[in-house]
Amino acid sequence: MSQTPGKFITVEGGEGAGKSSNIAFIRKYLEEQGIDVIYTREPGGTPLGEEIRDLLLGHKHDGMSDETELLLMFAARAQHLHQVILPALRQGQWVLCDRFTDASFAYQGGGRGVAWEKIENLQTWLQGDLRPDLTLLLDLSVEVGMDRASKRSTPDRFESEALSFFEKVRDAYLRIAKEQPERVKIVDAGQSLETVQHQIKSILQHYLTNTN
Amino acid sequence: MSQTPGKFITVEGGEGAGKSSNIAFIRKYLEEQGIDVIYTREPGGTPLGEEIRDLLLGHKHDGMSDETELLLMFAARAQHLHQVILPALRQGQWVLCDRFTDASFAYQGGGRGVAWEKIENLQTWLQGDLRPDLTLLLDLSVEVGMDRASKRSTPDRFESEALSFFEKVRDAYLRIAKEQPERVKIVDAGQSLETVQHQIKSILQHYLTNTN
Repeated sequence: MSQTPGKFITVEGGEGAGKSSNIAFIRKYLEEQGIDVIYTREPGGTPLGEEIRDLLLGHKHDGMSDETELLLMFAARAQHLHQVILPALRQGQWVLCDRFTDASFAYQGGGRGVAWEKIENLQTWLQGDLRPDLTLLLDLSVEVGMDRASKRSTPDRFESEALSFFEKVRDAYLRIAKEQPERVKIVDAGQSLETVQHQIKSILQHYLTNTN
Repeated sequence: MSQTPGKFITVEGGEGAGKSSNIAFIRKYLEEQGIDVIYTREPGGTPLGEEIRDLLLGHKHDGMSDETELLLMFAARAQHLHQVILPALRQGQWVLCDRFTDASFAYQGGGRGVAWEKIENLQTWLQGDLRPDLTLLLDLSVEVGMDRASKRSTPDRFESEALSFFEKVRDAYLRIAKEQPERVKIVDAGQSLETVQHQIKSILQHYLTNTN
């Protein structure tokens, strides 16, 4: 829990799960409820974080070690929390964030095989008890997701991974949702956009009803 | 201890302590003893690490949080260990490194005031039991060091700190040397270069005698 006046909502999901359009929908829906919400993303969210993002996603450093990758993710996250997320939450804004620490568990833990407890250590090191208040996991079969994602821009360092990598990412996300069902809500992103957004809307409605 | 065929020697010290010329002296001395030694530095030591170094030392990101700074230092270190230090040590080379984790304790711990145990956590997270086999701490009064350093290039993000910052850095270095006298040897860098190098030579001779 964020234990601040504002609420911290994160959206997670693999490649091609429709994060962008669904985040736009969530943002609009929250604003319609009179909520002051800011949108941000990881890795990135600050000028320094975006430079770290470039190091992480570019192909210049293909020999990057798993631990380097994880520490860079958390370095960008440290700046993001310090400069954007915590100040907003403290002044009562809601923060809608495209990916957060669950993505480190999914990609570096599940995908790369870094031990779960090594990521938990960093999570505690940086965040203490801070966790998102609500996480929407846009879940989709890897085949469909990759097919959708491949129609977009040139694949980045993560998008260039093999199918088996993304299977492990998906499994890790589903493990988190299973372990933390109160916080993490699974959205079946394989349906039509209209059905997906109907599902998202009812999760948000339920959350708002039980928060206020 | 590195527990590898090669030995891991680090050189630490504040601004203007004469690290560059003394490292050149150490390197030459070790080579004269028939030791295969590589030289490297932190933050940096790899192409990715040097890009992280630029983020850390440049003035573009003056609003960097202490935790971001520390995680970036360890991210660069992770890559450095993975790509340079550990492969060299494993094949029997000696590694001579300009600054290592002691500098994180001195600059981020002492200088910035990050809790000592937060740095110890990251040290264990990344390095396990790996520590330098021998560390030469070039110790110098802050006034003299700053005076020497100011005659060089434009100050970087660290060199632009106040005198009190460097007093705390020095105190932290001396604390480490006091706590780990077997590993960390203090060299009085306030003397003439000849006297300093005489001191360094006798530390190395003693180390070599007790290692072989």
